[in-house]
Formats: sequence, C-alpha cells, structure tokens
Amino acid sequence: MICKVGINGFGTIGKRVADAVQAQKDMVLTGVTKTKPDYGAVMAINKNYPLFSATQDHYEKLNNSDLEVQGDINNLIDISDVIIDCSPSGFGIKNKKKYKNKDVKAIYQGGEPSDIADTSFNSTANFEESLGKDSTRVVSCNTTALCRTLYPIHSQFNLKKVRATMIRRGADPNQDSRGPIDSIIPKMEVPSHHGPDLQTIIPDIDIDTTAVKVPTTIMHMHLINFELNKETSPDQIINLLEDSPRVALIDDKLGINSTSQIIEIARDLYRPRNDIWETPVWRESIKKSGDEFYLFQAVHQESDVVPENIDAIRALMEMEKSGEKSIKITDGSMGLLDKLYEL
Amino acid sequence: MICKVGINGFGTIGKRVADAVQAQKDMVLTGVTKTKPDYGAVMAINKNYPLFSATQDHYEKLNNSDLEVQGDINNLIDISDVIIDCSPSGFGIKNKKKYKNKDVKAIYQGGEPSDIADTSFNSTANFEESLGKDSTRVVSCNTTALCRTLYPIHSQFNLKKVRATMIRRGADPNQDSRGPIDSIIPKMEVPSHHGPDLQTIIPDIDIDTTAVKVPTTIMHMHLINFELNKETSPDQIINLLEDSPRVALIDDKLGINSTSQIIEIARDLYRPRNDIWETPVWRESIKKSGDEFYLFQAVHQESDVVPENIDAIRALMEMEKSGEKSIKITDGSMGLLDKLYEL
Amino acid sequence: MICKVGINGFGTIGKRVADAVQAQKDMVLTGVTKTKPDYGAVMAINKNYPLFSATQDHYEKLNNSDLEVQGDINNLIDISDVIIDCSPSGFGIKNKKKYKNKDVKAIYQGGEPSDIADTSFNSTANFEESLGKDSTRVVSCNTTALCRTLYPIHSQFNLKKVRATMIRRGADPNQDSRGPIDSIIPKMEVPSHHGPDLQTIIPDIDIDTTAVKVPTTIMHMHLINFELNKETSPDQIINLLEDSPRVALIDDKLGINSTSQIIEIARDLYRPRNDIWETPVWRESIKKSGDEFYLFQAVHQESDVVPENIDAIRALMEMEKSGEKSIKITDGSMGLLDKLYEL
Amino acid sequence: MICKVGINGFGTIGKRVADAVQAQKDMVLTGVTKTKPDYGAVMAINKNYPLFSATQDHYEKLNNSDLEVQGDINNLIDISDVIIDCSPSGFGIKNKKKYKNKDVKAIYQGGEPSDIADTSFNSTANFEESLGKDSTRVVSCNTTALCRTLYPIHSQFNLKKVRATMIRRGADPNQDSRGPIDSIIPKMEVPSHHGPDLQTIIPDIDIDTTAVKVPTTIMHMHLINFELNKETSPDQIINLLEDSPRVALIDDKLGINSTSQIIEIARDLYRPRNDIWETPVWRESIKKSGDEFYLFQAVHQESDVVPENIDAIRALMEMEKSGEKSIKITDGSMGLLDKLYEL
Repeated sequence: MICKVGINGFGTIGKRVADAVQAQKDMVLTGVTKTKPDYGAVMAINKNYPLFSATQDHYEKLNNSDLEVQGDINNLIDISDVIIDCSPSGFGIKNKKKYKNKDVKAIYQGGEPSDIADTSFNSTANFEESLGKDSTRVVSCNTTALCRTLYPIHSQFNLKKVRATMIRRGADPNQDSRGPIDSIIPKMEVPSHHGPDLQTIIPDIDIDTTAVKVPTTIMHMHLINFELNKETSPDQIINLLEDSPRVALIDDKLGINSTSQIIEIARDLYRPRNDIWETPVWRESIKKSGDEFYLFQAVHQESDVVPENIDAIRALMEMEKSGEKSIKITDGSMGLLDKLYEL
Repeated sequence: MICKVGINGFGTIGKRVADAVQAQKDMVLTGVTKTKPDYGAVMAINKNYPLFSATQDHYEKLNNSDLEVQGDINNLIDISDVIIDCSPSGFGIKNKKKYKNKDVKAIYQGGEPSDIADTSFNSTANFEESLGKDSTRVVSCNTTALCRTLYPIHSQFNLKKVRATMIRRGADPNQDSRGPIDSIIPKMEVPSHHGPDLQTIIPDIDIDTTAVKVPTTIMHMHLINFELNKETSPDQIINLLEDSPRVALIDDKLGINSTSQIIEIARDLYRPRNDIWETPVWRESIKKSGDEFYLFQAVHQESDVVPENIDAIRALMEMEKSGEKSIKITDGSMGLLDKLYEL
Repeated sequence: MICKVGINGFGTIGKRVADAVQAQKDMVLTGVTKTKPDYGAVMAINKNYPLFSATQDHYEKLNNSDLEVQGDINNLIDISDVIIDCSPSGFGIKNKKKYKNKDVKAIYQGGEPSDIADTSFNSTANFEESLGKDSTRVVSCNTTALCRTLYPIHSQFNLKKVRATMIRRGADPNQDSRGPIDSIIPKMEVPSHHGPDLQTIIPDIDIDTTAVKVPTTIMHMHLINFELNKETSPDQIINLLEDSPRVALIDDKLGINSTSQIIEIARDLYRPRNDIWETPVWRESIKKSGDEFYLFQAVHQESDVVPENIDAIRALMEMEKSGEKSIKITDGSMGLLDKLYEL
Repeated sequence: MICKVGINGFGTIGKRVADAVQAQKDMVLTGVTKTKPDYGAVMAINKNYPLFSATQDHYEKLNNSDLEVQGDINNLIDISDVIIDCSPSGFGIKNKKKYKNKDVKAIYQGGEPSDIADTSFNSTANFEESLGKDSTRVVSCNTTALCRTLYPIHSQFNLKKVRATMIRRGADPNQDSRGPIDSIIPKMEVPSHHGPDLQTIIPDIDIDTTAVKVPTTIMHMHLINFELNKETSPDQIINLLEDSPRVALIDDKLGINSTSQIIEIARDLYRPRNDIWETPVWRESIKKSGDEFYLFQAVHQESDVVPENIDAIRALMEMEKSGEKSIKITDGSMGLLDKLYEL
C-alpha cells in the first residue's frame, strides 16, 4: 500500500517530516498546512507540496495571498490516511477533535501530554506497541535520544538507576525572539518531567532527570550517570552503542569537542538543513567511576524525531510489523549513518 | 516645597527612579505600584517604599500575599503631586485617563507615543519647554543619549546632517525570555523612528537613523556620522563634550574598548546596579574624514533616563527654572561624574 | 586545459574551495594540506582528497597518525598549476616565498595585506585585471559583498559617496574559543580599513566605513548609506540588483527579517553546509531619504568568497577571458541562484 | 597586629581582594602589581593603592607612563607580611620562587595545582589546618561553593555519595575575546577534576563531578545530587543551610529563577560590582527523590573566593584561631548577608 500522509503544521518539525515522507516509497504526501502566507508557505509551493490552511479561519487570509491554497485542514484530513500533527505545543489537544471526527489516524509530537494518544512511541524501544493503533505520540527530542541509548543498555545490562542532566538550548536557530541571551535558567521541577516521559516508553526504568536552559540554539546536551545490575565495562557499552540504531559514536580526540563541532560535521556531510537525525555519543565520555557509568550525548532538537515520525506511520498503518524493519527502510531512504565518519 | 512623587510601575526604570527620588532633598516618594507579589514587591517592602497595586484588579492578589499593601493606583494618585509612569510600553496610554481624572501631573517614558504628553523632555536640550506643564514624556534611552551629545554640537557648530546607526541590545540583563541568541535583526523601517523622536526635542535637526538588534544585554551602541555648517576640528568637539552635561569621555587606549569594559568601570566605581547615567563617548572615535565627523557612544538602556525623570519633575512643578540648575542638583544627589575616571 | 589546483589549508575557506574545485570541469584538485590529524584530516581522506602536511615540520606528526599522507606543501606545489592559500590570516605572507621559489601561481585570501599579490580580485568588478598574472588576492568576505552591490550601482548611477556600517560576527560557528559572549566591540579605527580595501578593487569610489563586532556566529550585516551623481529611484536600484551577479534580493514581508532567517532559507534549500554564496539584500531596505539611499545586506562570512576563488583561478590561468563567462560557469557548477526563492 | 598585605595581580580577583583588605581593621594594603598602564592601573592610582610592576621587566613600561610606580614585585614583597598571588592561572608557580626567596607568606588561587602550597583552604571547612603555615591555596570558585554547602551537610548528615554537574560560564563579563558564542562544550575529563579538588579540603567525601561550558558570562550553576548515611528530610537540609556561613537561600517562587535574576538582586542591593560573595541555593531545588537528594546552587565566579582570601591571611598569620571568628569579622566588614532579602 501507499500511505497518504498529511502534515498539520509546516514549521521546524513539519517541514522536515514532509521531506522525509516524500523520500519514502510506501508513502505519499497529501499536503501541509500553514496559517500565514509567509516564507514557509512560499517554500511549500516551491516544493510542490499541496498547501492547506491550518484552520477554516485562516483559509481566507492564506487564499487572498498569491499562493494557491487547496482547502483547509478538514479537506486535508479527507484525503489522508494519517495526519501528523506538527502544530505548536498545546495545539495538538485542540486538533484532536478534528481527527477523531473524521476517523483519521493521528501522530502527535512530544510537546503534547502523554494521554493524548493510544501510545507513546520510539522506534528502537517500543515500535510494536503502536501496531494498528489509532494514534500515537512521538516523544520529545530529548526523550527520543534517551530511548536510543538507554533502551539498548537496559536490555543488555539491566539499568539499576539513571541520573541525567539535560542542558537545553534556549531557542531553535530561527527563533529570534526567544532567549536567554546571558543567563542559565534551571528547571525548578526536581526531578524534571523528562524521567516520567521516558517511562511512557520504558516503564521499568528508574530514572531521575534535572534540566537547565542555556543561551545556545544548536543542540541540547545530556550528561548521563547510570548504574547497572549486570557487570560490564565501558568498552562493552561502546560496542553495544556502535551496533544500536540511530546512535553514532563521535571522537573528542579528533577535535569534536562541542555541539558546534558536531553541527560542523553535519555541514561537512552536506546534510539537508545540517540535520543530525542520529544521537551522537562521545566515545571518551563513556567511563566508569566506582560502580557508576557516565555517558555524554548531544541532541539535535530540530530533527532527531523525524525518522521516528516516519516509523510511527508504519506502525499505526501496520505497514511493517517490526521496528527493526521500519528503521532500516527509513534510515536507508533518509540517509542515516551508523557512523558520521570513518576512522 | 517638597514634591510628592508616586511611581506607577516598579520594574527596570521604576525602581531606579524611586531610588533617585529618595536621594532628592526637594522630593519625597509617596509609593510604588506592583501587579505581583514577587521579588520586586519584596524589595519595595524591604526598602520601606509604600506599596500599592498597579490596578484595582491586582489589589486582591497583592493584598493576599504577606506583603503590606497601602491601596491601589488611585490611592497613590490621591497622595501625589506627580506620577511617574514607569509601566511597560503601551500601558502609559491606558493609564493616562486615571491621571487626567484626578488632575495629577504625569511623566511618561519614551516607549509611549509623543502625543501622550504636552511636551517631550530632555534635561540638556529643552528643560524650559516643560515648565509648569501638566505632563511630559522623557524620551527613550537612545534619544536621550543622542540629545546629550548632538544638542551641544548643534548649538555650537550647527549640524548640517546626522546619520546614526544604533546597535541595540536584544534584552535587558534580567529579561531571560527575550532573544535573539545568535542572530542580527535589522529594523526594516528605513530610516528608523529614532530620528523623528529626536526631532520632538530638537526640531531643526536633520537626522536619519538605522537600527539593528543584536544578542547582548548590557548596552546599546551608536555609531554617529555628522556634518557641520561651522568649521571645527575633532579636538574642539572633544573639548565641547568634556564640558557638556551627562557626557563622559572614555579612552580606548586604556583598554576600554567595548560595552562590557564600560560596565566594568561602573562596577569598579561601585555604582548602584552598575548604572551608567552618563553617556560614554570614545575620545578616539571622534574623527574627521573629508567633511564628515564620526563619534561612537554607548547607552546604558536601564539607567540613562533616570536623571532626566528627576529633572522632569522639577520642570512640571516649576521647582527650578533652568535645566542647568536642576541638572546640577540631580547630578550631585545621584553621584553623576564629569569623568568616569581621572587620567 | 584542466588546471591542477592545490589548496594550502583545509579550514573554513579551504574545505569549501576544495569542494568547489571538484565541481569544475576545467579543474582538478591536486590535494589539500593540514597540520594536525584531526577531524578535518579524516574528512579529507574520507573525501579522497590527497592529503599533504602544511609544512615540512608537520609531516611527521601527520604521517604518524593512521592517515595516508602524500607529502608536504612543497610536494603539493610541484604537482599544481595554482595554489590557493587558505591558511590562517598572516600565514600567507610566510608561505609566499615557497610559492615564489617554485614559480607556482598563487591566490591569497582577504586577510592578507593587499601588496602580497599582483592584484586584488573580485569577479564582478575587476576579473580582467588579473588575467595571466602570477598572483592575486581575493578580497575579504565583507569587501566581496560590498563589490557585488556597489560596483553595479557605481557603474550605472555613479556613486558620489558611500557610508557603510559593518556589524560583524564575533566568531564562525565552530570557533568555540572566540567571543564576545555579551558585549559590543567597536573598531576604533575610524574610518575602518574596509573602505580602503574596497578601493583596491574600485579605486574611484568614495567610501567611509565603520565596524563593530557582536556576539553572533552566523553572518555579518552591512547597513549602507549612499549618494548618487545620477538621479534614480529605489525601484531602479532594485531592478539593477536583481540582474547583478551573486546578489539575491530577499523579502522582509515574508518574515525573512534577520540573519538567522536567511540561514534558515539556505537550510531549507539543502545548501551544502547551509552556505550562502550570494549576497542577500533586503528589498524593503532599499529606500531613499532626501538625497540619500539606504541598503541593508547580509554576508555569509564562511562562503561568499568561494566562487570568487574559482574565478580567480580562471583569471590567473587565462582559462576564460571575461568575468561574465567565468561567473556563469562557476555559478552553474556550484548551484548559485539569481533568487533564493520564487515569489 | 596589623598585617601588611601585598596583592600580586590586579585583575578580576586581585582588585576585589585589594578592596576587601582595605575594609579590614587588622590589615593594611601595601600595594598591588600591574604589567600594563591600562585602565586597571589608572584605577589603582585613583584608589590610592601603591602601584608596583608585576615583574622587573614590566617596570620600565609601567614607569614610562604617567602613573606613579613604587617599584617592582620584589620591593612589594619586602614591605609585606603576606602576598596574595592573584596572577593569571599558571603564573603562581612561576612566582613561588620569588616568595620563597624572600621568606614572605603566600596565598595562591585555585587555578594553581594543589601542591603549590602547604594546604588548600576553605573558611568553613578547614580554616584551622592553615594556622601558621607558610602558604595556602584558596580553592577555586566552584570548589569553594561546593565546600560551603557540602561541608555542613557532610558534618551533620554524613554524605554517602555526591554527584555534581557544573554548568560553567564561558568567560567573565569583561573577557570579550573568550567564547563560546553559540555552543556547549563538555569537559571530556570524566569525572572532572572538581571532585578531587574538593577532596583536598574534605578528604573523606565521595564525589564525582562532570562539567560543561556554556555561552554565559555572569555565573556558574551546580546541579547536585547526593545520598546521605543519616536519614533526614529536605526541610532539615534547608534549616541547616540557613544557618551555614556564606550560604544564602533564594526563592524561585518570587521569580528568582535564573542566574540573571540573582545578579539582579545583587544590583538591587547596591552590591559593589554586583558581587555575590555568598553561595545562593534555591530553596525549591532541595528535594528528595527515592533515597537521593537534589540541590541547585549558583556561583559568582568573580567574587565568591574573596572573603576566603581574607580569612586565609588570618590563618597563615594566626591572627584568629578559629574559622568561625574570622568569618564573622570578614563578613561584617564586607557586608555579607545571611539572607539576600527578607521575606
């Protein structure tokens, strides 16, 4: 089958998911929605993506511009098998009724509450739970990254306890109005919600998280401390992660010693939008101190959930039965790599 | 007479003006207003500043906290001769009716439109125009700085044309939610409104301005180009500015080569809140190229209008008849300096 | 003929020029040099770019790594018709002797003094001056951008006077050690050296420039004021620039209102490394006030000189006789656009 | 006795220690050293601090300026009982010989290796160990802050394990040349050196630390996780820290939710240079999750070690026999507070 996919919201996540859908042989893009006739709408037209208004109210405004508008969100739903809701955080809840009314399958993003959908989703950890479901929620960029490294470690070595500090970017690169410019803002929810969010995917994991926001735009970083029930060594962890999907080991000794250096690799690889769909983990950070391990990883907040959204479509539509298979197709079509470079 | 001064709004400008009022022998602070029982309200109490709610609606919320609240803005107006409106940009217009209703004199800030008040105000350039008026508007931090350097130059050497580029800070130091973090945002209004705003004070000045916003919190900077009708030399301009009120020459050759170095001086001077009420001008930037002059100045956006607000009180209340006299009193009481350091 | 091109230095500029050389039908890359076996050297190997050490001294260090090294800079010179010196600012002078000794043609970058080479170079403005010369210097990213917009305007409408303010980025995206983080640093050389640098290309232009450095990594911005000897209108300037090589008009009204929004376009275009080889100019900034015009442009400091380096090879080697022809070949091979998007 | 104190180095730390020495009744400042006749040297003269050159070599340069120079470092040593070495990191080792040669007591800063001096020093934790010693090293700003909160907790409740993440500022406010501007730089030494440094003061503490550098100038932040051997509650920890020296509880609920808000308090308190000598700890961050506690604190890297330097003088000179007594004198003279505000 060819699955018909509509994207509601054509911003940071939506435009990336739209491109990724286009790259799949088993999917076709039915359209994307916008509220304003701005550069994003022009880009949709230039890319020949059918353009719809995000609400009925926005239809007039969009239609009065010189851009060709195909209808509103309800029209898009009518011609789609699945809608991927890429609207701003909090709007998913408002849109849910529209999807329900028309019995279309729906995929939400991690900014929505976990009870918005039948399941929460991560390709590596729980693809199968969403098979045939009406809706799922792809967990946030941070939780997705945690799933990718912690799920394999947990499966193999049985995590006893995880403590993770998330150093979050203040704004995406093009969000000029957001700060901070010169300040560190701790999340005073202690432990933070990221732990429980991970437990929607890996229920038996014992994790506490803390978080701060800092003046950077390009990536988040996670400093992770963990204990294991099964004895192992840093090298075994490294070997495991080298074989884990969507995890890419990187090497401080080559001068890759910051988030900006990671982005530079993506640029040198001619990645679209310098996206890093994989979760980069510093080889040298995987260390043992006493009974506790350390692991540092970076998170490209704009793009790491994009392949998961594609897999989520296949799960809901039962186009593939296993995560492993879907991951392989998605990664092949989008160009994900096991390693960002060869040594 | 002792003028009774109320401050409506106790944020960045309001808290500074309140302290400055307290430092005057001919004024007394009747109170300050807040909307929320946050740290700012606690500080008002700790400083023994009578606390009022900024609106009737906010009274309950504020009064239900543990803080002692004296009433709302109307009560504050009743016991004041002048209200200084230090509410966020755009609120002045809404508050105007309250002041009018109770016939209290009012001083607005530069974020409000120029027709909100009888006059626009700068101590150096047009103090006398506001004598006895019901209301005035202290022009913005940027316009205030332009007045201080350009008015003396215009008076003495007759400005033929001014072109000024303003490089503006994205947010104040404690405005964590505002950006940009890594971007330059040009003001696409060309020329920008800063020129016309200066003309509310110096009507016969021929000036065009342009502006960009950049990721810094501490100061604005102005790069000014100007032509004169009267022949003169850079040294004469320097001499003139050394004698001009609230202008402080600074020296690049001593390593004072950025806005952060200027703030460091304020810190080393033990200035309250590291405020720089004066307008610092780089001696080495005052250069002539062909028929045109250059001058670079920095602007401490949080504080440079504070002494002007004090002088504006004296003008409205006719407590002093000349700007020169009021400036002398204000500067003496607040500790403004002719030079930020001795060579 | 197929010109054999060696690149001395494989950093920000060098790696881009290497890729651009590879994209030319009339050129072949003989190799690139490195000093350290870091990520950049690994990338050269991964791209099958022959790797040489930047000096004889560095040969051992590089050769002792696992990377295959072909020799040192002298070996690279021996197999090349032209060397493009992309070493850090100031090293070009040191390298000059090596090139002279072996009679290889050399292209230097804008960080070197203008007398390092026979000519200074810009494709639009003075390609023909470098025909058959032994060496040339591609002017800096800022001067290149000024050439592209001011040369056509000057040719057509005769510039009487230009005043340009450059708001410069503090560091490139991957230069983590460079600041400032929260400060504006004015260049106290008034007027700045950028004007005289432009005059090495357009000798009869009357220009004064000023510059500041700000905490951003992605692009420079120029706020340009100019007067013309020939009467014209903003629309005529816009029309002229629409037809000028390597100038791309952009539209504030579409929400493209900052340097980060421009980079977002490059990302959405899947540009390699999100490079913007063209000089983006805001349509809405081209305004007239009295007798003076305004124009705002942005400068992608990492990449705008790359196509000029390619053209410079053709000039030195007399592979093409006109700039127009070379520009057409270079732009076609690299994918430069007249417009970054269609309206 | 009146102790004669010389300061070698008049930068960020040196100028603050000099002012603090001046504020003590039992100390007198014999002089400060500089290498260049810049603004800092001018400030020393303006403050009537005797000025010496930091080395014999720098004497000429400094003396040829208009500033009055009293001699070089050796002359300063001759008239001092103690030298506080506030030279840049790594220079202390070079200076050590000079102090040894002339048998003057010496205090080093935390950037030096721990074996440079007889002891490492923190007022709260181990004042008495340095009594009568020839030299000591005041540990770094980060380690000092850790001592202040962890030592009382350890003494009272017996720390079983501490895990601390330090989010460090990239540069001090006036260090314009240092970055990063838009990047997060992890310290790839895992665990980082901060743990062992704390153990020079509290040898029996089990602590692992990790660290990243981020684009901010104003404060570091520590996210601390700890386990205790003695059962207790968050409230008991809060009570303990309320009574601990140089720890100041702050309240997120009042809107004090970032490092910039803490600096704003210092500014509102009219603190010299907006210094925060105390270690601010968020009341709401002290939480228990399972068996583990959390605590978030901020560190004013420019000033928190200043009072410890003063106490270190008294320890070396045996002017007071107990840390408690010295702390009381220092805090009274400098104006440290138990609480930064009253609720």
